[in-house]
Amino acid sequence: MWQLYQFTLCPFTRKVRTLLGEKDVGYELVKEMPWDRRDEFVDMNPTGQTPVMVDPERSTLLIDSMAICEYFEETIDKAAMINGTATNRAEIRRLVAWFDTQFYRDVTGPLLDERMVKRIVHRTTPNSARLREAMKSSIAHLDYIDFLLDHRKWMAGATISLADLAAAAQISVADYLGGIDWTGHTHAKAWYGAFKSRRSFRPLLAERMSGIEPPSYYENPDF
Amino acid sequence: MWQLYQFTLCPFTRKVRTLLGEKDVGYELVKEMPWDRRDEFVDMNPTGQTPVMVDPERSTLLIDSMAICEYFEETIDKAAMINGTATNRAEIRRLVAWFDTQFYRDVTGPLLDERMVKRIVHRTTPNSARLREAMKSSIAHLDYIDFLLDHRKWMAGATISLADLAAAAQISVADYLGGIDWTGHTHAKAWYGAFKSRRSFRPLLAERMSGIEPPSYYENPDF
Repeated sequence: MWQLYQFTLCPFTRKVRTLLGEKDVGYELVKEMPWDRRDEFVDMNPTGQTPVMVDPERSTLLIDSMAICEYFEETIDKAAMINGTATNRAEIRRLVAWFDTQFYRDVTGPLLDERMVKRIVHRTTPNSARLREAMKSSIAHLDYIDFLLDHRKWMAGATISLADLAAAAQISVADYLGGIDWTGHTHAKAWYGAFKSRRSFRPLLAERMSGIEPPSYYENPDF
Repeated sequence: MWQLYQFTLCPFTRKVRTLLGEKDVGYELVKEMPWDRRDEFVDMNPTGQTPVMVDPERSTLLIDSMAICEYFEETIDKAAMINGTATNRAEIRRLVAWFDTQFYRDVTGPLLDERMVKRIVHRTTPNSARLREAMKSSIAHLDYIDFLLDHRKWMAGATISLADLAAAAQISVADYLGGIDWTGHTHAKAWYGAFKSRRSFRPLLAERMSGIEPPSYYENPDF
């Protein structure tokens, strides 16, 4: 059985877990707080970041959320999520990188620092200027998602793909931390409402990070 | 013919160009200075980053250096660089992410900011504390490369892979900017000396960024 090292609000782990859910791959969760920089974990993964997957029976170690997704995409036929022509696949990977890097840098990362790490690790108050900046970026990112979904059914085209999983992973963490203002973002809201009902995603929305409550509408597909 | 938007010292473009060289894919260079944030370029790629590849005849647009590499890996059989079993391929992708993200964040990125952007764009002096920090990180990264190459012929295993191309791309830019102290890094130095002789890589080492000279040994495979 695969072991998946993660913490509840890790957006990169959420992308991987949704993919594993779509593909019906079983795993057990191992709690890892990357900010503890636990020696055994850093020895396993020198970046010190979650997620990491280990299959002890076959001595397999998978590191880096995109490398993990590509691995399961190559080894499990069910629910192909990097699909279509080579050009379609390039567009899916571009958007995964967009959400993993730009959305995380502008929105999810600052929210996690200010509203999670500062609360549960440092027990200090968040930097309100940085939070305001993240909220402003969040609106710009939702505008871009609205633009994409204005001429596409899913993020990267006509079918669901890893780009949608990556987007929902980042958005769900930002939403949990009160960083998403859904007002006016019609396409993004409709897309995310539908995504919330997926069997692969619902279990993640039911989980709570101890000491931090999400907004009341957080789990509701009809919000 | 593919058009490749780039600037001489872009490490992500160097990874792509070395792959295209290995695969004998032709392209023409288009100079793009990402720090200018040229409107037409940002319209094409919202991250504003190089490299971007365009095939005007087939209206194909490829964005994000890893998505570009995966595209050519899927469409050109020659010189497979994400090769081996699914586990090998995961290790290659982990290391590409390591060099693209960690090495860039710790070493190449700060060196480009301090020794290139400040010189040719802002015309200010570099921050010496930040440069010292980058040099310290550079040594730690070379130690890690020595560790990898102590039990492997190439970065990710027995054969050359995209991990080597990603590493050489970052290292060559850091080396151009005087950020690599080769003293004592026996394995890394032997590996890079051999890599410098590759037909796909030599042309990159011959290029110069106007106004910035590399160290005298920079192009020499026997340094």
